[in-house]
Amino acid sequence: MLRIGMLTSGGDCQALNAAMRGVVKTVLNNSKEPVEIYGFEDGYKGLIYGKFRLLTGKDFAGILTTGGTMLGTSRCPFKTIREPDENGLDKVEAMKQNYHKLQLDCLVMLGGNGSTKTANLLSEEGLNVITLPKTIDNDLWGTDMTFGFQSAVDIATTAIDQIHTTANSHGRVFIVEIMGHKVGWLPLNAGMAGGADIILLPEIPYDLKKVIEAIEERDKRGSRFTIIAVAEGAISKEDAKLSKKEYKKKLETSKYPSVSYELAAQIQKKTGREVRVTVPGHVQRGGSPCPYDRVFASRLGAEAGVMILKKKYGFMVGYKNREMVQVPLKEVAGKLKTVDPKADIIKEAKLLGIHFGD
Amino acid sequence: MLRIGMLTSGGDCQALNAAMRGVVKTVLNNSKEPVEIYGFEDGYKGLIYGKFRLLTGKDFAGILTTGGTMLGTSRCPFKTIREPDENGLDKVEAMKQNYHKLQLDCLVMLGGNGSTKTANLLSEEGLNVITLPKTIDNDLWGTDMTFGFQSAVDIATTAIDQIHTTANSHGRVFIVEIMGHKVGWLPLNAGMAGGADIILLPEIPYDLKKVIEAIEERDKRGSRFTIIAVAEGAISKEDAKLSKKEYKKKLETSKYPSVSYELAAQIQKKTGREVRVTVPGHVQRGGSPCPYDRVFASRLGAEAGVMILKKKYGFMVGYKNREMVQVPLKEVAGKLKTVDPKADIIKEAKLLGIHFGD
Amino acid sequence: MLRIGMLTSGGDCQALNAAMRGVVKTVLNNSKEPVEIYGFEDGYKGLIYGKFRLLTGKDFAGILTTGGTMLGTSRCPFKTIREPDENGLDKVEAMKQNYHKLQLDCLVMLGGNGSTKTANLLSEEGLNVITLPKTIDNDLWGTDMTFGFQSAVDIATTAIDQIHTTANSHGRVFIVEIMGHKVGWLPLNAGMAGGADIILLPEIPYDLKKVIEAIEERDKRGSRFTIIAVAEGAISKEDAKLSKKEYKKKLETSKYPSVSYELAAQIQKKTGREVRVTVPGHVQRGGSPCPYDRVFASRLGAEAGVMILKKKYGFMVGYKNREMVQVPLKEVAGKLKTVDPKADIIKEAKLLGIHFGD
Amino acid sequence: MLRIGMLTSGGDCQALNAAMRGVVKTVLNNSKEPVEIYGFEDGYKGLIYGKFRLLTGKDFAGILTTGGTMLGTSRCPFKTIREPDENGLDKVEAMKQNYHKLQLDCLVMLGGNGSTKTANLLSEEGLNVITLPKTIDNDLWGTDMTFGFQSAVDIATTAIDQIHTTANSHGRVFIVEIMGHKVGWLPLNAGMAGGADIILLPEIPYDLKKVIEAIEERDKRGSRFTIIAVAEGAISKEDAKLSKKEYKKKLETSKYPSVSYELAAQIQKKTGREVRVTVPGHVQRGGSPCPYDRVFASRLGAEAGVMILKKKYGFMVGYKNREMVQVPLKEVAGKLKTVDPKADIIKEAKLLGIHFGD
Repeated sequence: MLRIGMLTSGGDCQALNAAMRGVVKTVLNNSKEPVEIYGFEDGYKGLIYGKFRLLTGKDFAGILTTGGTMLGTSRCPFKTIREPDENGLDKVEAMKQNYHKLQLDCLVMLGGNGSTKTANLLSEEGLNVITLPKTIDNDLWGTDMTFGFQSAVDIATTAIDQIHTTANSHGRVFIVEIMGHKVGWLPLNAGMAGGADIILLPEIPYDLKKVIEAIEERDKRGSRFTIIAVAEGAISKEDAKLSKKEYKKKLETSKYPSVSYELAAQIQKKTGREVRVTVPGHVQRGGSPCPYDRVFASRLGAEAGVMILKKKYGFMVGYKNREMVQVPLKEVAGKLKTVDPKADIIKEAKLLGIHFGD
Repeated sequence: MLRIGMLTSGGDCQALNAAMRGVVKTVLNNSKEPVEIYGFEDGYKGLIYGKFRLLTGKDFAGILTTGGTMLGTSRCPFKTIREPDENGLDKVEAMKQNYHKLQLDCLVMLGGNGSTKTANLLSEEGLNVITLPKTIDNDLWGTDMTFGFQSAVDIATTAIDQIHTTANSHGRVFIVEIMGHKVGWLPLNAGMAGGADIILLPEIPYDLKKVIEAIEERDKRGSRFTIIAVAEGAISKEDAKLSKKEYKKKLETSKYPSVSYELAAQIQKKTGREVRVTVPGHVQRGGSPCPYDRVFASRLGAEAGVMILKKKYGFMVGYKNREMVQVPLKEVAGKLKTVDPKADIIKEAKLLGIHFGD
Repeated sequence: MLRIGMLTSGGDCQALNAAMRGVVKTVLNNSKEPVEIYGFEDGYKGLIYGKFRLLTGKDFAGILTTGGTMLGTSRCPFKTIREPDENGLDKVEAMKQNYHKLQLDCLVMLGGNGSTKTANLLSEEGLNVITLPKTIDNDLWGTDMTFGFQSAVDIATTAIDQIHTTANSHGRVFIVEIMGHKVGWLPLNAGMAGGADIILLPEIPYDLKKVIEAIEERDKRGSRFTIIAVAEGAISKEDAKLSKKEYKKKLETSKYPSVSYELAAQIQKKTGREVRVTVPGHVQRGGSPCPYDRVFASRLGAEAGVMILKKKYGFMVGYKNREMVQVPLKEVAGKLKTVDPKADIIKEAKLLGIHFGD
Repeated sequence: MLRIGMLTSGGDCQALNAAMRGVVKTVLNNSKEPVEIYGFEDGYKGLIYGKFRLLTGKDFAGILTTGGTMLGTSRCPFKTIREPDENGLDKVEAMKQNYHKLQLDCLVMLGGNGSTKTANLLSEEGLNVITLPKTIDNDLWGTDMTFGFQSAVDIATTAIDQIHTTANSHGRVFIVEIMGHKVGWLPLNAGMAGGADIILLPEIPYDLKKVIEAIEERDKRGSRFTIIAVAEGAISKEDAKLSKKEYKKKLETSKYPSVSYELAAQIQKKTGREVRVTVPGHVQRGGSPCPYDRVFASRLGAEAGVMILKKKYGFMVGYKNREMVQVPLKEVAGKLKTVDPKADIIKEAKLLGIHFGD
């Protein structure tokens, strides 16, 4: 008997179901022993508190194209994973116990950065763990791509497209706030795809003066409108000088709901132009996965399935230089893949006339 | 020579270009005299300040499917139309003068409520005016339908669809704020199409207790999540008791960016559940018109074209009981078509189990 | 106990699930007695051969947005309904027996023309029947609208949009064949929405010469391409003179897969221009229903639910002049709602410059 | 003065405009000398017959998101490029003369396989040529990716999605014919993304028996339907044994419009099941480019722009292992990048249970 535990952790994204389907189909189609699939509910919580469903192949039929995660998910900060819960329960021990009680051969975890750190911890504690790189942010170390990313790019780009027509009609400056607190792959790609004139990323602190100059130069050249794609975590050069603690405090006490709103107020004040803010928000992680993500997540799932069949554990399945790779969990855990301000794509974007406020 | 002035006024929406194309194609294809089209820029402003472009048939090619308005638009509140501008210019007189200077035979105005009031004023001042019912709110009196509405429903529904999958994954209460300050057709239809569990409209003040009961009842029945479609102008029963002035003040001094955020805080506090707010915002009025709006706006444009050829002025072209109709401008001006809380569609929505908080 | 049988019949379309959900939610939410739902599989076949599933409210959760029909469907020609099946079974008697064996209070049938005729027959045989108007063709008598229609218009329009760009790139004549054997509402609306230059409908036989003239006139005016939206059942004036039998034979012995291909060959021969044919085909009836259809089908379902609760049978639920109506089945059965060549929408399309080949 | 000629050749696809915009924006934004852009119309024809438009930056505004090619295109088989035209004109000489007459510094050609061969020929004849890899087939040697491919995958996948719901409703076998005469990347990816059960590619000749076995095995396991994604150039093992000439003759004299229809007839005959064929056709190359293609084509364009500024000619700009690369034209010309039947993606697809008929 082959017993597989499975859970999805952190903010959900597109193609979680496709990836799980890939794992399960591969194992069921190719295992020589009987297989049992234990789906833990709502992320690590399900493993901690022993909440799971026993699943069959049928549960994974028809989910290639569905959004969300059939298992549910929750955020479970790595920071607090070693702290006891409100009833004094040792969470790590509880996970180990439930894993062993069910006689699992392995645990498949689909998650992003924080969740992979926890997976690495469990691996170090002796559990057999395989992870799949899930995040709309594409910021996981060790893989060129994560699933969810391209679907989120598609949705954010559609938002910019729709804003484009109304910005043009009204001759306005429009700020579209795009997900990405620490890493800018999503706003960068959606911004380029949507034809944004200015893109502000966490990795490239912006100079307000230069942003305004860019808007005014567009005015001079007769452009009716300016579209600014702003990452949630965009930061001004001034703020970038603050300590982490100071900046956190600034954000918490700001009268603006987010950086975008503050920026809008500043631009409106300095240029006298009408500025509007749009925040697509959670829609970016919802809905049916795009075809790219469906194929990619299915492939990752298939590779994870093979690893289970070969009993090869302790890895994240990733994608490097167009090949599926197995990356040791400890190499992934705790590292971010950020946008290098000197990357080719930034250089090319600048050649095309896109401003980054630097 | 037939000289036609044309302008788009108020917030833009989908199918403005399709409607103008309909007018112009009809007139150019069927007029016995030569035709000149004067496109005023940025709404009534263009007419006031004499900013226009002379347009040909070619300018209207390929715009059936494009969003926004090729003429630009601006809001021009009826309230202030009789007040002189900042240089002391009498705006109404200026419009009349420009109209006569260009020897226009008529003015075609595409706009919503306020803009149609101004059009009626110009009609009463002796100009030949025809209007087309443009608004995503579908709140124009005298017509069963306005163009822009169905396209906005499509976009708002897509947003709810995308929120659905993530709400389900995380087991959250999600509020989707949908455009509609005074009238709820858009949130009502998008809410029903997106499978919202609760819909809050300006026309049906809500009781917070009942909203929370509805959420808790869903909990009891095992539903992981609740989706609430909230009109921008949704109002609680308590607030509905305030005078207009008091309520305006309340909104202005609120610490929440909109009613949705206040409601979210209240629900979170009372139920302890995680509540998230998503505001699709201006994307609802952008992008390519949906097929329904393209056909509908083209038909309205064709009918307006015929009226021009027949020199029949002073009307809005509308649609009643599946027939194109001509509604005298003075009957339209200043009236809103709101959602009747006793309408069949509300009754049916309630039968389906949708709560309106009443 | 209230026992409801339900089946979907004929070619499937979008919003069948939404409509069934509407019926079931309404009944379950509002019935004072317990309810049992019997879902017959694959259309009337399920009723004839006693194949059904007992369904609960849960089966209808999450299907508002899904395409197809959860019950399956099949075509069951009215012509042969009174003939015994290959084993000599009397199909009508079998349906009556199964209905009575299960002690059904009523049968809800979602179907188009032929299926409604059968429903009327069953009603005349004493069963309690309510029908809902399902078809992408919008050709059901007694209702202004059918569900599935607007979704199919959306898909067919997208196809024309996509063909538009490639037709323009290559300077070609493109024929897009759109569903509609007897009735042209779908090609008419998709053609207008997609900006087709020529639209050929079953109701308006075309003159090949005039079609070619229209193409050549476009050439003269400098248009690089021509898009022709052709109904599956488009017919030339010459062929329209043939007897039904002669025409059927002509089609059967034609070397072309459909009218579109024959027309393409004729145009290519006479004009020397490159002509391409695209046949979106079955995609037009697939995929998630558009928001319009979701709301409309839900409303129809709710009204049918009310009728069940009131034990009012023998009707199709329809929509006339913006009101839900109950149309006696015998008035609907066997009648088609075709496009009147003198209808306003045709007149308007012609004003816009669209040719119908007449 | 920097004089740049530009043309698009072969079947059009998505993101041609985005790529040209990328080249032109980069050159205009960064050139120290004045720039003139000569856009040749309808592919190499424009260069042969001296048909061109002088273009400015404004012509390239707003085209990032538009389908087709603003320059028009045509197929111009490499086979016949050295043959004189019907008036005895030497086409290669004519192209050289027009190039020199306009004192061009270089020619930018956006095209696929055949067109790149011609570009290489012109390069060998002494012209300065840069090419960009355009094709929905993704079959160009020397680059991991071509623009147009991902957009076509998206459209073909949507078609399979829509067929899925109707196949399920009716319990049918459905064949979706997807573009790809010689190379199967598009049907492979769309098939995997759409959840096709069987995928038939030009690179993997199929055994009819195994295809039927796969369908029957699905039947046994209770699957109502089977979706087969068939490349235009799919070929049976038997036919693969024929000589090229014999096979060509077979196709020409076949009574079926394409391989898919023949396969459908065979399956229907052998299994007795209802089989339907859908051919999305040219829609796969039309419409707005997907975000991935917009970014990718823009980046390629920017790199080509840099090469022009650096006067580096004789290359195709490609993408290898996530880096922009310059591939000598002679290395690209005449080579196809096909699907290796032993590639990882095929192996993974098989693990997932997808049949390839081998």
